[in-house]
Amino acid sequence: MIRGQVTLAHGNGGRLTRRLITEIFVPHLSNPALDVDTDAAAVRINGGELLMTTDSFTVQPLEFPGGDIGSLAVHGTVNDMAVAGGVPLYISLNVVIEEGFELARLERIAASLGNTARACGVAVVCGDTKVVPRGHGGGLYLSTTGVGYRVASSELGPQAIREGDAILISGPPGEHGTAVLLAREEFDLRAPVISDSASVLPLTQALADLPGLRFMRDPTRGGLATVAADIARITGRNVELDQSQIPTNVQVEAICDMLGFEMLHLACEGRVMAVIEAEQSRRALELWRQFPGGADAAIIGRVTALDDPRDSPMVVLRTAVGGERVLEELEHDPLPRIC
Amino acid sequence: MIRGQVTLAHGNGGRLTRRLITEIFVPHLSNPALDVDTDAAAVRINGGELLMTTDSFTVQPLEFPGGDIGSLAVHGTVNDMAVAGGVPLYISLNVVIEEGFELARLERIAASLGNTARACGVAVVCGDTKVVPRGHGGGLYLSTTGVGYRVASSELGPQAIREGDAILISGPPGEHGTAVLLAREEFDLRAPVISDSASVLPLTQALADLPGLRFMRDPTRGGLATVAADIARITGRNVELDQSQIPTNVQVEAICDMLGFEMLHLACEGRVMAVIEAEQSRRALELWRQFPGGADAAIIGRVTALDDPRDSPMVVLRTAVGGERVLEELEHDPLPRIC
Repeated sequence: MIRGQVTLAHGNGGRLTRRLITEIFVPHLSNPALDVDTDAAAVRINGGELLMTTDSFTVQPLEFPGGDIGSLAVHGTVNDMAVAGGVPLYISLNVVIEEGFELARLERIAASLGNTARACGVAVVCGDTKVVPRGHGGGLYLSTTGVGYRVASSELGPQAIREGDAILISGPPGEHGTAVLLAREEFDLRAPVISDSASVLPLTQALADLPGLRFMRDPTRGGLATVAADIARITGRNVELDQSQIPTNVQVEAICDMLGFEMLHLACEGRVMAVIEAEQSRRALELWRQFPGGADAAIIGRVTALDDPRDSPMVVLRTAVGGERVLEELEHDPLPRIC
Repeated sequence: MIRGQVTLAHGNGGRLTRRLITEIFVPHLSNPALDVDTDAAAVRINGGELLMTTDSFTVQPLEFPGGDIGSLAVHGTVNDMAVAGGVPLYISLNVVIEEGFELARLERIAASLGNTARACGVAVVCGDTKVVPRGHGGGLYLSTTGVGYRVASSELGPQAIREGDAILISGPPGEHGTAVLLAREEFDLRAPVISDSASVLPLTQALADLPGLRFMRDPTRGGLATVAADIARITGRNVELDQSQIPTNVQVEAICDMLGFEMLHLACEGRVMAVIEAEQSRRALELWRQFPGGADAAIIGRVTALDDPRDSPMVVLRTAVGGERVLEELEHDPLPRIC
């Protein structure tokens, strides 16, 4: 019997979230289509294949510079489908509202959600609404499930990653996490940081046919560092990152320095990390830089062999001044309710 | 601009829930596949059709005689698919957990959910977990989205209903609502009422090929009366119900009498109402009665013409003693967080 209580750290997207899923849920739900290492499940229906992905949203505050829980709920599910090499067509919408919520605010968020869905080419085809008593909710929680079809190779996935592959990111990390943090006004800080929340579908579709594309993921909860740790853990290889190559929003960096946060743990909601055969990485960069969302794309690292086969795989950050340090997976979340 | 606040009655499944959906969400989300009068949306993907449905669960207490939020989350989505004439294959699972929730209890609910999914023939293929701070949740909220394929005619729906059609229910109403009510221990009442929570898939599949099958729905929030009111509203005809024909759990009836509740407003989670061409209604009854979940099935009423075309359509209950009264749609919810 499993003892203890759920903590906020169980929801931060890092090691404890993975344990919660693999120890509590997976043993009871296990089936061939369930794969906790991918962003979308491939299932067969009527003889054809479709991809299915889902996400819940509990962000606080509900509205922040660059988006709100409605636009985030669409981008989150569109992006999970996109990084799995798919194109989303339809989404379901679940709404849990706390008694006393302002109807005008609910409508503003519904409008944002609808506009974002149209912009992303997805239709909200079914939904459900529940109201919970005052004190039993955080204002508004949304869940969205997307279904779509595959455009990239079905070989796409962490298992396709090879030694020597290059790691790319489409833009500076941490803007979403920082924008939400500042919008909470818990710290006496002001800075014009806007969430990067956006559909990454143009970026993932641009790479869909590129030979040597191995794996894509959007670094949300737990940030770039957590995706890098996942790559190391699943492939059993090291991930080396060059700090000087990581595109940086200087305001995000300054705020992290002030508050003692690791920028690479902060959530993005409109970035893609891709692992690509080294020879194709320049071509991928050119493709991404044609899009506004990929203007600052960069090759930030590579997958390397373990020094000794008995070592545990790890993420090593080579610092700008020539040092190196191990980048740990997020353990204790400085920012609950970030998405 | 819409003013006011969300109230618990906005979540009761009745008139205010419909207004919340049609006035706040539908104008912003509108698209050809979104139909708020059906239980599942039909969408096309890869040239084929699939059905998609979704539901959220906020029931309190989380465990009750006859089920828990995990089994309910599977039955709810399986049943929405079933009454739309479909068979569910895959579901997504969203979990929002309040900080401090017991891991052992979470595992018990996950096990129940997994067992129920296997029993219903559906696979949980993707999921998401969020943790909200203490005081921002009601313990545990679940959302499930199902995808599946159609087995009944695509003509099935309230628009297919004709004057003279018979209305059937598969078993006594109100057991789920009553079981949850008693489990709350807010009233000093004890009675061995067990939730009817179950998959209705065997019942809906039994009728799938029956000529003259017009419409099916599971009477959850708002109960039998709300489904009857929906039929009257959508068809523009009256619905006449014979009280003496409605199968009744005598303990549910006694508790409703004591507390002043209308039994026909209480939620079921394992019943089906079907509207069928009158000539086929006996055959439907025979088919249902072959299943344990349909042993008490009955023909409980009919769809009739308005007395005067200028009248508003209504639901008329003919009482056992020969009187008649108008059965109103649920307005103020006696039981929030019932499903």
